[in-house]
Amino acid sequence: MDPFVYDALAGRVVFGPGRRREIGDEVDRLGVDRVLLIADGFDLERASEIERVLGTRCVGVFTNVVQHVPVALAEQARELATSTGAQATVTFGGGSATGFGKAVALSHRLPQLCLPTTYAGSELTPIWGLTDGTQKRTGRDLGVQPVTVIYDPELTLDLPIDIAGPSAMNALAHAVEGLYGPGANPVMSAVALESVRVLVEHLPLMKQDPSDLDERSAVLYGAYLAGAVLAVVGTALHHKTCHVIGGLFNLDHGQMNAVVLPQALAYNAPAIADQYGRLTSLLGGDAAGTLFDLARALDTPSSLAQIGFPDDGVDVAAPLVAQAAADNVRSLTVDDAREFLEACIRGERP
Amino acid sequence: MDPFVYDALAGRVVFGPGRRREIGDEVDRLGVDRVLLIADGFDLERASEIERVLGTRCVGVFTNVVQHVPVALAEQARELATSTGAQATVTFGGGSATGFGKAVALSHRLPQLCLPTTYAGSELTPIWGLTDGTQKRTGRDLGVQPVTVIYDPELTLDLPIDIAGPSAMNALAHAVEGLYGPGANPVMSAVALESVRVLVEHLPLMKQDPSDLDERSAVLYGAYLAGAVLAVVGTALHHKTCHVIGGLFNLDHGQMNAVVLPQALAYNAPAIADQYGRLTSLLGGDAAGTLFDLARALDTPSSLAQIGFPDDGVDVAAPLVAQAAADNVRSLTVDDAREFLEACIRGERP
Repeated sequence: MDPFVYDALAGRVVFGPGRRREIGDEVDRLGVDRVLLIADGFDLERASEIERVLGTRCVGVFTNVVQHVPVALAEQARELATSTGAQATVTFGGGSATGFGKAVALSHRLPQLCLPTTYAGSELTPIWGLTDGTQKRTGRDLGVQPVTVIYDPELTLDLPIDIAGPSAMNALAHAVEGLYGPGANPVMSAVALESVRVLVEHLPLMKQDPSDLDERSAVLYGAYLAGAVLAVVGTALHHKTCHVIGGLFNLDHGQMNAVVLPQALAYNAPAIADQYGRLTSLLGGDAAGTLFDLARALDTPSSLAQIGFPDDGVDVAAPLVAQAAADNVRSLTVDDAREFLEACIRGERP
Repeated sequence: MDPFVYDALAGRVVFGPGRRREIGDEVDRLGVDRVLLIADGFDLERASEIERVLGTRCVGVFTNVVQHVPVALAEQARELATSTGAQATVTFGGGSATGFGKAVALSHRLPQLCLPTTYAGSELTPIWGLTDGTQKRTGRDLGVQPVTVIYDPELTLDLPIDIAGPSAMNALAHAVEGLYGPGANPVMSAVALESVRVLVEHLPLMKQDPSDLDERSAVLYGAYLAGAVLAVVGTALHHKTCHVIGGLFNLDHGQMNAVVLPQALAYNAPAIADQYGRLTSLLGGDAAGTLFDLARALDTPSSLAQIGFPDDGVDVAAPLVAQAAADNVRSLTVDDAREFLEACIRGERP
């Protein structure tokens, strides 16, 4: 039994089909009666349903939600929170909607309730992000962690499978890296393994029949667990690599995730023998290879070469990857980073 | 995927041999510098070690700790907290020491840090209890949940095996009932299964060699997980039965636990097919039978008849058990309770 530290995060999760309609009760439970609704602009029909359920509790609606939370737009949401006297925010949508709620929480200390429609996981974390021009600032603040999350799988039924698949692979990466990330601990490892078990079983089934609510439910549940793990453990080699090369070469986030995850796990395997063994036994086959096969089953590309990683990209990326992953569970020199990136470019089964 | 609600509890856990010596750092981390040390009186030598580590942070020591937190003694501890101007409590010992810290937290709203020396699990819950004469009052208050728990397995090395075994069986019961108790949810089920896995594997090994720190560590870890589950899920048929018959006939808590758990699980099996199947697959044999065998391996009695349950006890106990377990996952009439108690009295392998 290795020593560990585990800072457990509080938070209420309500999970089940149709439970978005309990959002009013959940607001009441917080003892507030004036909420600002922040909703993804691209699904205004369902956002209106939430507004109707909130009824007179809803004192304002903000739909100017875009990626990466630009400061100027965050200020608009904050001003609306002030002018309406909101006592809480309800955010409806993917990670961007959640991000705007966090921006308001950061300045106004308002509790946030989330109705996620994707597998972003950020609704479970105390991490905020704001973009000023091309500069993205992020921070950790327990005050921006949403207090209540309602996961209603019906909200994910319309998520096209070519978005749902990569988004869920990203969640799977949170779970896998939860086994060896900076805040890893045995409790989170148990939750991470449960997440991997559920996602690996149900992702291919959801792809077969995207209208099957049971499969959508299982994947949303697996993604929720992955988000809970991410919130405590943080990210490691896989996500840090994706952050570097995605930023350098503007690669598609979901595709990149599917390529890099099996290779990152294979690279780390020698340093995480016990966890790797548990994953392999859970998956019924070599862990990295099984994740590679899963990505194939989801029709994602297998190599960085296929998705636009430039031929001369390794030279510029390798030192940055080595630097970003300085706290990786297995040490990574610039030469190691080069070899690792080359494996991702080739995209062979590890 | 069944709908569920999960109210996750915050809390910091520091786990590892020797980490009791980090108690000063953990106090500093809370930003306070005056603490009241509450320690089990029967281990004053190690309590003094804690006092030394706390140094000038320690502004008072209370050692008048007895079972069930009598109100008069709790008032003594509270007065000491007031007169010393303590800003936090550090409790050192088993569930009783933790209970005194909670009594102070209830009145003074002081954060509590725990150094548990048994497998009670109460250091993870927001449940307090106070006894006035023969009357025990209990309540749930997030303000009494300890904020930091240091699990140092070295502190359990001196726990005699005939106390450690039944105490760990009690923890195992928390984990098993965490699969179907009133607040059960799939996340806690994953943690509960991890707890069962660890305890069932390591309890017999700890019994073989009580001086093996690795085995003591594993059992303390399994008991910690069980406490985390208990804090969220609450208790069910097993504990409610033990509470009733223990109170009626003054039976030994640990022995009673070892007898009742396999029978309670067997009774509930038809109502928890999925969870029962997961337990059985984890244990590599029928779940209730395996727990029965484990209790035998720990040399605990197998039947209530052996531990003093009176011949005519069923008539008085059955209606009370049926009433106490009214929210049990499988309904329990008075006749059912009678049959269930008779199975516990016979003590056959379920």
